[in-house]
Amino acid sequence: LPLHGQNFPRPLSNLSSLAVFGPGLIGGSILRARGKFFPGSKLRIWGRSHANLEQVKSTLGDECFISTDPSEVAAGAEAVIFCTPVDSMEELAEKIHTSASSARWFTDAGSVKGDLVLRLEKILGPRYLGSHPMAGSEKTGFSSASAGLFTNAVCILTPTGTTPPEVRREVGEFWQGLGCRITECDPFQHDEMVARVSHLPHLTAAALVEVVADEALNVAGPGFRDSTRIAMGDPEMWTGILMENRDAVLRSIEKLEDSLQTAAEALRHNDRQSLKNLLSHAAQKRARIS
Amino acid sequence: LPLHGQNFPRPLSNLSSLAVFGPGLIGGSILRARGKFFPGSKLRIWGRSHANLEQVKSTLGDECFISTDPSEVAAGAEAVIFCTPVDSMEELAEKIHTSASSARWFTDAGSVKGDLVLRLEKILGPRYLGSHPMAGSEKTGFSSASAGLFTNAVCILTPTGTTPPEVRREVGEFWQGLGCRITECDPFQHDEMVARVSHLPHLTAAALVEVVADEALNVAGPGFRDSTRIAMGDPEMWTGILMENRDAVLRSIEKLEDSLQTAAEALRHNDRQSLKNLLSHAAQKRARIS
Repeated sequence: LPLHGQNFPRPLSNLSSLAVFGPGLIGGSILRARGKFFPGSKLRIWGRSHANLEQVKSTLGDECFISTDPSEVAAGAEAVIFCTPVDSMEELAEKIHTSASSARWFTDAGSVKGDLVLRLEKILGPRYLGSHPMAGSEKTGFSSASAGLFTNAVCILTPTGTTPPEVRREVGEFWQGLGCRITECDPFQHDEMVARVSHLPHLTAAALVEVVADEALNVAGPGFRDSTRIAMGDPEMWTGILMENRDAVLRSIEKLEDSLQTAAEALRHNDRQSLKNLLSHAAQKRARIS
Repeated sequence: LPLHGQNFPRPLSNLSSLAVFGPGLIGGSILRARGKFFPGSKLRIWGRSHANLEQVKSTLGDECFISTDPSEVAAGAEAVIFCTPVDSMEELAEKIHTSASSARWFTDAGSVKGDLVLRLEKILGPRYLGSHPMAGSEKTGFSSASAGLFTNAVCILTPTGTTPPEVRREVGEFWQGLGCRITECDPFQHDEMVARVSHLPHLTAAALVEVVADEALNVAGPGFRDSTRIAMGDPEMWTGILMENRDAVLRSIEKLEDSLQTAAEALRHNDRQSLKNLLSHAAQKRARIS
């Protein structure tokens, strides 16, 4: 997919106020980056817990509005971004769509698009455009957030036939302003691609951990550690992501099993050349993004 | 497995000369560490290419003996370590076992033990003890070697019923001197364990890379990069390792497929709780070695 590089740093002076729903790793990193990249923007923050919101506010400074009432947070915001788990976004959208009349655009940072984009677009109208910043780590929460999280990360936008050009441009500029490189694809194509490049590796990392006996875990070397680090991701969040994208994830598991069986066949038949070809191809392919 | 910590740094003044076969990532790191941890040892180095040996010698300094003749390198050495690919070790052992009469012990740094240990023991006698330092990276060659590679790495020793106690002690002290923590297990138990903790993750990383379409590769985030980094390992070396341990690797592939199918079942039946239980269990288990 073609990537559009960022023009970095790039303050967007025309964004007067930004509403962030869910100040976790992603939402928190947007909030922390705001001072650097969107110095003129007023912040409006929604969270489930008032105690957590107070902590976010005290970290960011006094100039932000916090509330556990979604419609209050959306009221008057020029732009709205959902950084909550994917399975809570429709409910939030329903709660804000009347109060958010002044919003020029809505987006989200969810890992699943497809149907969800169509459902959110149905609630919020064509001002909604799906986004997926390919950033994050096995850590979660505002305390792990950092202003640099998006630097050079890829952000996938998933416009539909009804998304207006100015929404595509403005949401794209927002992510570029945070340091992302931008690409666009169809919401369903996104889900197939991300199932393979993100959801399958996550599930596989968990499966690799389960295969190792408890008493053998302490001999693990750096290879095992790297290849299973993402298994430490938040189980609640990943259950939501995997369930939301289940069909594409199930197809990706089949593909992985096919690929493993190709290797198993080579092993069974003592076919060194086929095994080496498979490993060489994978090594060269992976090295293209090293 | 119980780990014995190192007493670090711990010069072994009683090792007068050390023969290293194969100055690649592992052998090279032993050579580079030598000055720090075994300052009194004379080095004897075997490699296939004279040009490479000359480069190794010029990096290390003048005091080492280099040769492409195995028996010449082994002659007079007090200790011998094979750091070559596993499938070349038997041939080397055959070539040195007469000239290496002065050696107090032989070991290797191979990723596969099992039968190979029995075959090497048959050639070299009970002075041979298998070792497997769980260190390394996707990089190869002397240029990637570093004196710190073994710091806190686990090294598995695989004694048999005939290994004398003093060989176990001296080989263990050698690796501890390089910074390793030591554990011991049966050569066949080693192979089952390492199939799961090292060989399977390697094969799976390659399979995960193959599942991603070429044009989707550039949207990969840090999770994909971490979980597939080891797929960039040397294909020739890994073909040798996987072929040598094929039975255990085939069993480990079946185990992984079982584990993936457990997750697939949960997805198919929309069973959030089972999927979350699986992810939670893996996350907690993996966090024990984070």
